[in-house]
Amino acid sequence: MSDFREILTDVSGGVLTISLNRPERLNAWTGIMQTEVETAIRAGGADDGVRCIVITGAGRGFCAGADMNGLQSIQASAGADYNETRPAAPKPVSPSELEQTFPGRFGHMFACPKPIIAAINGPCAGIGLILTLFADMRYAASEAKFTTAFAQRGLIAEHGIAWQLPRLVGEANALDLLFTARKFDGEEAEKLGLVNKALPGEALMAFVGEVAQHLATQVSPRSVAIMKRQIRESYFQSYAASLAVADAEMEASFATHDFKEGVASFVERRAPAFTGS
Amino acid sequence: MSDFREILTDVSGGVLTISLNRPERLNAWTGIMQTEVETAIRAGGADDGVRCIVITGAGRGFCAGADMNGLQSIQASAGADYNETRPAAPKPVSPSELEQTFPGRFGHMFACPKPIIAAINGPCAGIGLILTLFADMRYAASEAKFTTAFAQRGLIAEHGIAWQLPRLVGEANALDLLFTARKFDGEEAEKLGLVNKALPGEALMAFVGEVAQHLATQVSPRSVAIMKRQIRESYFQSYAASLAVADAEMEASFATHDFKEGVASFVERRAPAFTGS
Amino acid sequence: MSDFREILTDVSGGVLTISLNRPERLNAWTGIMQTEVETAIRAGGADDGVRCIVITGAGRGFCAGADMNGLQSIQASAGADYNETRPAAPKPVSPSELEQTFPGRFGHMFACPKPIIAAINGPCAGIGLILTLFADMRYAASEAKFTTAFAQRGLIAEHGIAWQLPRLVGEANALDLLFTARKFDGEEAEKLGLVNKALPGEALMAFVGEVAQHLATQVSPRSVAIMKRQIRESYFQSYAASLAVADAEMEASFATHDFKEGVASFVERRAPAFTGS
Repeated sequence: MSDFREILTDVSGGVLTISLNRPERLNAWTGIMQTEVETAIRAGGADDGVRCIVITGAGRGFCAGADMNGLQSIQASAGADYNETRPAAPKPVSPSELEQTFPGRFGHMFACPKPIIAAINGPCAGIGLILTLFADMRYAASEAKFTTAFAQRGLIAEHGIAWQLPRLVGEANALDLLFTARKFDGEEAEKLGLVNKALPGEALMAFVGEVAQHLATQVSPRSVAIMKRQIRESYFQSYAASLAVADAEMEASFATHDFKEGVASFVERRAPAFTGS
Repeated sequence: MSDFREILTDVSGGVLTISLNRPERLNAWTGIMQTEVETAIRAGGADDGVRCIVITGAGRGFCAGADMNGLQSIQASAGADYNETRPAAPKPVSPSELEQTFPGRFGHMFACPKPIIAAINGPCAGIGLILTLFADMRYAASEAKFTTAFAQRGLIAEHGIAWQLPRLVGEANALDLLFTARKFDGEEAEKLGLVNKALPGEALMAFVGEVAQHLATQVSPRSVAIMKRQIRESYFQSYAASLAVADAEMEASFATHDFKEGVASFVERRAPAFTGS
Repeated sequence: MSDFREILTDVSGGVLTISLNRPERLNAWTGIMQTEVETAIRAGGADDGVRCIVITGAGRGFCAGADMNGLQSIQASAGADYNETRPAAPKPVSPSELEQTFPGRFGHMFACPKPIIAAINGPCAGIGLILTLFADMRYAASEAKFTTAFAQRGLIAEHGIAWQLPRLVGEANALDLLFTARKFDGEEAEKLGLVNKALPGEALMAFVGEVAQHLATQVSPRSVAIMKRQIRESYFQSYAASLAVADAEMEASFATHDFKEGVASFVERRAPAFTGS
């Protein structure tokens, strides 16, 4: 995974860290970055050595939104070269069922069997903000600046944000953030429910590192992968259908190594050694 | 719009302000008021000079709920004259698709293409509270008193509040507020997510005025109208269907004046001059 | 209701209190307890003298989750004796429509026509936590410790928690709590929206007693039963269908004693005497 041009990747202790890496542009989003982020997440999802994925930004920004050069050229050509700026995501070789339920630019993040954490270290705008909504958990620097931006550019609620944002912050906050396109900081993002927690910037990466390490070592990767699918599928299921999945998965889990290890490590008061099998 | 008997209207700087105007009755809701509020919102929705609508109460109250004289006469006649007290809303000339999705007394507010803000300056009860749930954003005086009221009158969850309230405050708070019919203030309403923000009463209208002015001048009215529809339609859409709408609307926005103006004003670091075209 | 082995029940002032009663095991959940809790709730639901149901734990715990002896024997036998540990819930004699919508171990709690309050006095884990999610309101001791536990045992999101938890705390918090299985306290549970309110442990039962007394005496039991059904049915209804139910129920309520009493007691400034008729 070392041939990337606009991201950096690092695997350590079971955690894949992806850093958007155009720091001189506050990591503004490009078609190349889109392809590389997706490629890295798919690779991490398929790698048994990776149990958690963290996305953050190099330098002082997280992602300032679509690169304005791209937007200006769209403006000049009325959209004609939009496909060059933001290319269609490459077709996955074997799309999961969940990926068919959540198609588009970021649907693959919901389909990834590993937990994905966004560590929002600085400015987070437009498509950069949408990227984080498809992570499973979000942690932010208290002073990081957020904005949806679209309504101030004459744009609309792009890439599924109209569907996903109300699930995270409720209808009233979603309308506020989309209509006004106002700037808000990480501390307010926590209050709105947009991020799980805000911390002083200097403490952010250490905290995220602890959460990621916990996920990589203290919980069953099999459990996490199934839970991630259960939650996202439940949005389209009756309660009865969701319960039927839960009952079947519960029965199946009894025969696994990770269930035996989970009970044994608890009874023996020792750290678990989960394998995902 | 000057022939109203129970509301006041004012248009200034692109903002239509509707004041419920029975201050001696804490603006208790009547059939006349219902018709006039709906008429004023529909007129504002159709008026290019109006970019934001604010609903508030004249005097010290917002809306104390259904007029008790009305309720007492229903009680006396077991419901027979209910239609006189709260007349059926007039049929719209050309109901939008969204209005068919959200019928009833307040569905037209979701269908209105302009953002609607409730400025809750004082007591807000029963049907007065329901009215605010169909606004897009709610701001309240910290000391304003709220109550659903219904369970203390032997009534039920009226006019769609059972459907809409859990979307704003979650299931647990919705059940609490409906079951107990307890009084709570604006500060708690903010904590519950029922209002976007609570402020000291003397600061409320200035704050709402700023938000309304921002919406009237700093964002594209076209963007806002489309976003409003996207959010409310998304409740009934699969993610894939919501995304398809977003992709089509994004493409369409590239050809608009407001997109060109949005990018140009950003690059030139000047205030935008959106037209909605 | 006095023949129970693992719960205690008490009816006082219209409030049925059910105490999980294996204090030496922090009220760890067993098949017997499951059957007895369900039997007691069904009896309370059918008893006109009961207007509110409170579930709490005897001793210093609420419910520590599935009894580990049970889990260990499952582990030893790969699930074979699971049915003995957690027996299938007895079939209700006449299942309500809502119970068919919400089947499984706890669906009967949503179908119960009385409000159910969980008073979480101490440790609350695994299936004990799930039990509380099917109550209508939850109040907790600030210092009570919570955990989903499943991912640390190699298990999955059991018994409908994948469907219900996001409705209470939003997607991001639901994923955090399920993935990490981390411990959190009542104070954080309030912040996450998991409980309606957290209080110092010594104040918990007095506060819950006040809420329960209010529900037993100040609001119409007919109103509460209908509202409870309206909210839970609304999850599967279009807005139009939910509104049609509300309009029909509103009309029906005008002919009731409780509506007359609700208006009369308000006008006469006296306490209401609701009968549910």
